[in-house]
Amino acid sequence: MPHLTDDPRRQWAGALGEPRTPEGQNLIAALAPHLPRMAAAAAEHDGAGTFPVESFKQMTADGILAATVPQRFGGMGVHSVHDLCLAIMRIAEADASIAICLHMQLSRGITMRYELNRGNPAGQVLAERLLRLMGSGEAIISGALKDAGTVTELRPAGAGLHALTGRKILVSMAPFATHFVVSARTRPATGLPHAVSVFLSARTPGLTVPGNWSGMGMRASASTEVIFDDCHVPETDLFLRGPLGVRDEAAMAGQTVSSIGLLGVYAGIAQSARDITVAGLIKRGSSAAAVRTQVAEVDAKLYSMRTALAAALDNADRYAEQALPDPDERGRIMMAPFQYAKLIVNRCAAAVVEECMTLTGGASFTDGHPLARRYRDVRAGWFMQPFTYADAVDRLSAWSLNLDY
Amino acid sequence: MPHLTDDPRRQWAGALGEPRTPEGQNLIAALAPHLPRMAAAAAEHDGAGTFPVESFKQMTADGILAATVPQRFGGMGVHSVHDLCLAIMRIAEADASIAICLHMQLSRGITMRYELNRGNPAGQVLAERLLRLMGSGEAIISGALKDAGTVTELRPAGAGLHALTGRKILVSMAPFATHFVVSARTRPATGLPHAVSVFLSARTPGLTVPGNWSGMGMRASASTEVIFDDCHVPETDLFLRGPLGVRDEAAMAGQTVSSIGLLGVYAGIAQSARDITVAGLIKRGSSAAAVRTQVAEVDAKLYSMRTALAAALDNADRYAEQALPDPDERGRIMMAPFQYAKLIVNRCAAAVVEECMTLTGGASFTDGHPLARRYRDVRAGWFMQPFTYADAVDRLSAWSLNLDY
Amino acid sequence: MPHLTDDPRRQWAGALGEPRTPEGQNLIAALAPHLPRMAAAAAEHDGAGTFPVESFKQMTADGILAATVPQRFGGMGVHSVHDLCLAIMRIAEADASIAICLHMQLSRGITMRYELNRGNPAGQVLAERLLRLMGSGEAIISGALKDAGTVTELRPAGAGLHALTGRKILVSMAPFATHFVVSARTRPATGLPHAVSVFLSARTPGLTVPGNWSGMGMRASASTEVIFDDCHVPETDLFLRGPLGVRDEAAMAGQTVSSIGLLGVYAGIAQSARDITVAGLIKRGSSAAAVRTQVAEVDAKLYSMRTALAAALDNADRYAEQALPDPDERGRIMMAPFQYAKLIVNRCAAAVVEECMTLTGGASFTDGHPLARRYRDVRAGWFMQPFTYADAVDRLSAWSLNLDY
Amino acid sequence: MPHLTDDPRRQWAGALGEPRTPEGQNLIAALAPHLPRMAAAAAEHDGAGTFPVESFKQMTADGILAATVPQRFGGMGVHSVHDLCLAIMRIAEADASIAICLHMQLSRGITMRYELNRGNPAGQVLAERLLRLMGSGEAIISGALKDAGTVTELRPAGAGLHALTGRKILVSMAPFATHFVVSARTRPATGLPHAVSVFLSARTPGLTVPGNWSGMGMRASASTEVIFDDCHVPETDLFLRGPLGVRDEAAMAGQTVSSIGLLGVYAGIAQSARDITVAGLIKRGSSAAAVRTQVAEVDAKLYSMRTALAAALDNADRYAEQALPDPDERGRIMMAPFQYAKLIVNRCAAAVVEECMTLTGGASFTDGHPLARRYRDVRAGWFMQPFTYADAVDRLSAWSLNLDY
Repeated sequence: MPHLTDDPRRQWAGALGEPRTPEGQNLIAALAPHLPRMAAAAAEHDGAGTFPVESFKQMTADGILAATVPQRFGGMGVHSVHDLCLAIMRIAEADASIAICLHMQLSRGITMRYELNRGNPAGQVLAERLLRLMGSGEAIISGALKDAGTVTELRPAGAGLHALTGRKILVSMAPFATHFVVSARTRPATGLPHAVSVFLSARTPGLTVPGNWSGMGMRASASTEVIFDDCHVPETDLFLRGPLGVRDEAAMAGQTVSSIGLLGVYAGIAQSARDITVAGLIKRGSSAAAVRTQVAEVDAKLYSMRTALAAALDNADRYAEQALPDPDERGRIMMAPFQYAKLIVNRCAAAVVEECMTLTGGASFTDGHPLARRYRDVRAGWFMQPFTYADAVDRLSAWSLNLDY
Repeated sequence: MPHLTDDPRRQWAGALGEPRTPEGQNLIAALAPHLPRMAAAAAEHDGAGTFPVESFKQMTADGILAATVPQRFGGMGVHSVHDLCLAIMRIAEADASIAICLHMQLSRGITMRYELNRGNPAGQVLAERLLRLMGSGEAIISGALKDAGTVTELRPAGAGLHALTGRKILVSMAPFATHFVVSARTRPATGLPHAVSVFLSARTPGLTVPGNWSGMGMRASASTEVIFDDCHVPETDLFLRGPLGVRDEAAMAGQTVSSIGLLGVYAGIAQSARDITVAGLIKRGSSAAAVRTQVAEVDAKLYSMRTALAAALDNADRYAEQALPDPDERGRIMMAPFQYAKLIVNRCAAAVVEECMTLTGGASFTDGHPLARRYRDVRAGWFMQPFTYADAVDRLSAWSLNLDY
Repeated sequence: MPHLTDDPRRQWAGALGEPRTPEGQNLIAALAPHLPRMAAAAAEHDGAGTFPVESFKQMTADGILAATVPQRFGGMGVHSVHDLCLAIMRIAEADASIAICLHMQLSRGITMRYELNRGNPAGQVLAERLLRLMGSGEAIISGALKDAGTVTELRPAGAGLHALTGRKILVSMAPFATHFVVSARTRPATGLPHAVSVFLSARTPGLTVPGNWSGMGMRASASTEVIFDDCHVPETDLFLRGPLGVRDEAAMAGQTVSSIGLLGVYAGIAQSARDITVAGLIKRGSSAAAVRTQVAEVDAKLYSMRTALAAALDNADRYAEQALPDPDERGRIMMAPFQYAKLIVNRCAAAVVEECMTLTGGASFTDGHPLARRYRDVRAGWFMQPFTYADAVDRLSAWSLNLDY
Repeated sequence: MPHLTDDPRRQWAGALGEPRTPEGQNLIAALAPHLPRMAAAAAEHDGAGTFPVESFKQMTADGILAATVPQRFGGMGVHSVHDLCLAIMRIAEADASIAICLHMQLSRGITMRYELNRGNPAGQVLAERLLRLMGSGEAIISGALKDAGTVTELRPAGAGLHALTGRKILVSMAPFATHFVVSARTRPATGLPHAVSVFLSARTPGLTVPGNWSGMGMRASASTEVIFDDCHVPETDLFLRGPLGVRDEAAMAGQTVSSIGLLGVYAGIAQSARDITVAGLIKRGSSAAAVRTQVAEVDAKLYSMRTALAAALDNADRYAEQALPDPDERGRIMMAPFQYAKLIVNRCAAAVVEECMTLTGGASFTDGHPLARRYRDVRAGWFMQPFTYADAVDRLSAWSLNLDY
């Protein structure tokens, strides 16, 4: 595979520099012309808190929103989370808000492809519908996971219909999505409540999207609330999941595949913070002792971040395609490296941005400065699905020490 | 001295809990009724980027803006930088922007008192004028240090007058100051250019204050530009300093006294971040393994920050009152602990705020959240006078290794 | 108080540079002539694992082993743990094994003085006996705390006598002690077992000291086992303590006073590692970027370590002399700063020694090198009384979060 | 490739768990039966400072000392530094001293294979001789790099002979080597002095090996001095290198290949420290908050260490086989990831061992304890070829900032 750039770190093996697959190569190539424009507009969208609609239109036109849809449904066929994450990282170097939104769409393609191959029959039919919609360029699908207090519920509504009611927060690109996939709780007549993922159009009666996003960072991501007030949904539009309140470690395989690519957002923030800073230092001819030492240490942190993440991505790609006799063990083998990589990425990325501000000086404290934006954006990494730091420690230590959690 | 609160850490010796002097005790007592109101209004001022005018009016009415003015000139007579810093810390727990502005006024009182006692005759006369103005409650004096590019110059303008021309940035509370002290360069007929501090009224013709502050943090501090366009100043309104470009380590004594109290801003940000977070954890009944460990580690960082800072303040108070045979040695003995404390405060404070956000969860990523504000504010600590990190490393290592810098 | 040396850090306020009391000043002065000889012999004692008997003889001759005995009993009257710790630090700069042993003797004086003033009548009588023995120069008293497995027991032996049986480990200077104070469990006829401290001569029949110390570090400290096989002890030689298994936070006041001075051992190791290293760098004329940065950072760590420790010592000195309405609260107010200081000292000291080895290069990996010895010695800090890291986290987090432990 | 063990981390992709090549697979399999015996004997060899002769005999018998010799010369044909490093790591988990010695032999095979393929004609002939000697099981070849002060010199001795004179330190397994490769300086009649590597038998007249190794760690590695006093060597036994004092970045390719595998020593020390510690915690049923948190953090550090190292090894394997248009650029592309990985490995490994001691408690401070040995051994990592930390910072920062070094 030919080298894409002259940047030495893109030639380093195992450091999240190169795509692993031809499809990933195509995606990276398709993204390249969009990046300068995204980077140029990022400060303005961040300052005004506006969603970069034009970038999404242009990416749609180039097929990028269908990148992870199989080719037979009209997409580019990217199936490696390594390559997905690399694409997300490149975008985040330009604009982290776009990256966080696009990840939602692209990881949907990967999980739907998985659902298509391994899901139950009803899930397979629905997954194919979603993939065809995404492949046709008609659908921008946002995911609504986090409840604003009480749990979103799906209840029988008669005539084969169900009614969805609840309020979700942090739904990125919600005002611009054509559809949503909403996690909810459903209560069967007997037995435990079950998890369910509900697919519905943004035009469903009862669905409203207040324009109320006001994040410290990721300001252009339109991560607003979405309210579901008795939204009617047919049986065919549900992905039924397992019972709630029962430990299901096998499910961590899917959680890994759907969330790990998001780490590319923080890797991209850190990498671009470093590149901006080093360019400035070269221009000023800085060579003070502390500057030299700090630059070497920043680069070491980036290497640590990139290699830990690349390994966890390769691991996810390997086990996404490989069954193990014990599906719980497979869940743990996928989740543990993801969680270690998450800790490493979050810490290295935050430290890199901070040290870059120190290297750059007081100008970087201005609100519109590229480093100030990255400083605000990078903090989101600790709040991503599926675990808090405390949850991760509970699980990781339980697995090592044979304890309960 | 009786304990001021039941908070155990305020009873710990040497941990920046208690005032060292009766005057400091009075200042802390005078501040107490103002703090709840400042804390309640902080989010709004931060969100709107408005200067808390009402707080400054109320503090003026209570004599707080004259706290460091000797009693014979109408002030409270606070002279210990330890106690000044403690007061700044308490305010910063409520609103860091107010703290950074008030520090400018209060450290002025301390340095003017020093000028009055040790300065040259002309400086003594001018210092007394400033102290009387501050003591009368008429003056809010801002300092303008940092040039926006070219150096601010003071040139002879005939008839015993001088003309000041230049542009300064990061001048906190500039639109609300009644006077400014401006550092500039003056060129004598012969010899090296000298440093000069110019005192002038905010109403001086040629002085303008554009309302253009847009910081990532410290948004309520009105740290705008100030432009001086041929502002005429009489000879009596100048503090003449030494020649520029000549190493003057003795001058570090004054730099320490005038800047070290600012570290209280970051100590206060971190302490209040911790208190908000722990209150939330108690309410939620959190006791996960990682939560317990992280809380203990956060408290250890706060202890480290408070004790390093208290020691450097005590050291500054000691040597402010004590001459040494070698004034350069005195400068180094005051500056080195200040710089070590600055490193420790900046690192501990930033780490505490970050860990508090992780402990609190995604809600803290909302722009108006008290922790989000503190995350933005705390980063300013690295950019404070007089040295960058690289400058500090150059000097500190030179003193230890007998090298040049 | 006049400055003792030209070392600038000994002139810094609040940084463990100067004694706080005239008695402490005398102790530091009395130690000074012993330090060069101790430093010169340290490598040999470490290599051979021999106890520095000659140093103890010479210190005994100069009254140093009675430093903390009140003057009316023949001692120097040092009563400040700050000054005790400073003395321990100075010795540890020369030989950490001597420091760890001497601390045992000197902290005994402080706790016996406390027992004399506040203990029960029987305890007061016994405390005075110990103080007189120490003051006369006859006694070197070692403490035996840690059981080698089963708990050491004191049982009634008839005729007003008791019999002590058990095996203790890590009893520093055991083969050279004239007496021991041994913590044991006693079982009253009814009720809970109680703690008891047993005082007995090294010549008591049944007491044996196998010469079996083989530590990774602190090799010259003769921290061997001591075996008690039915050693008979009269009732008058017991300090009776509270019931076992009942939380007694008030007791943490005494634990703080008796153990906090030991932190001076690790502070002294780190400080001398730095001084040796910087002297070597000056000799080699090192000024590489990383060297300058690392030296500044090492010095910042030392400042952090010294100021956190000095504050915790001042705090212990304050509350040792001051009752509070709630004795449990007093215990916590003394213990919490001690534990924070312990974390800071242990981390800073270890990091300083490691960075000094990196700065010095491969020569420091030779077993007899002063830095290699310090690297081995410094690790002992984590294992000192009274809490492990996990215990400390449990308590400190419980106090902050209102949890149980 | 089938999984070699049930240890989940050996199944993780990109985490230094599995061999990359069939030859590496064979080497790992051949090593397996030796490891338990090495581990069992390690404490005794460490305590007595004895070289594990029996292990080397048994490994020789199984062909392990010829593992990196091409199969046509009688070896196992391992050519991947990734797989070499993995083998070194496995051995270091048992005994780090054996690992450091064996690395010397095995990396020689790799560099000689490279010399055979790319060296000058005389070098090719000599390389084949060495490979045949190693393949036959006759040769244990030690490398002598570091001068004890003055530079080792090779001078013309007439009759086509040369005379080698000098003193080398830190020559691992020197008393047991059959041959040495010695780096020296040669002075041609005209022009700059050149570097030369001299191959000679341990029985060469004038060569002596004093038995004087006394390291703080790696005590069983017999890393003694070797003295060369006018040792005569024929022209055919020299590898001629480039001129000294001229920057030769292309040469960093070879330095990377010959040294990077040594990082496996420190990775193995850390991994086994963790495994011993976790086994102890499980046995004791530890589940304190700080224990759980620390175990999760230790495992995250190990993941960081393993993934950064695996990536740097893969990178070295890639570019060892691939020419680039600019050989200096190739040197940098190989060296930079090696140096980043070295920083990450050294820091993570040291931190892991320290935290394991804290988790284990005071027993680990006994000299013969498996963790005490690892604590002493792990520190050697900072002193390995080719760069000190200061040198690495100079180069890495120069490459990023376009500066000189």
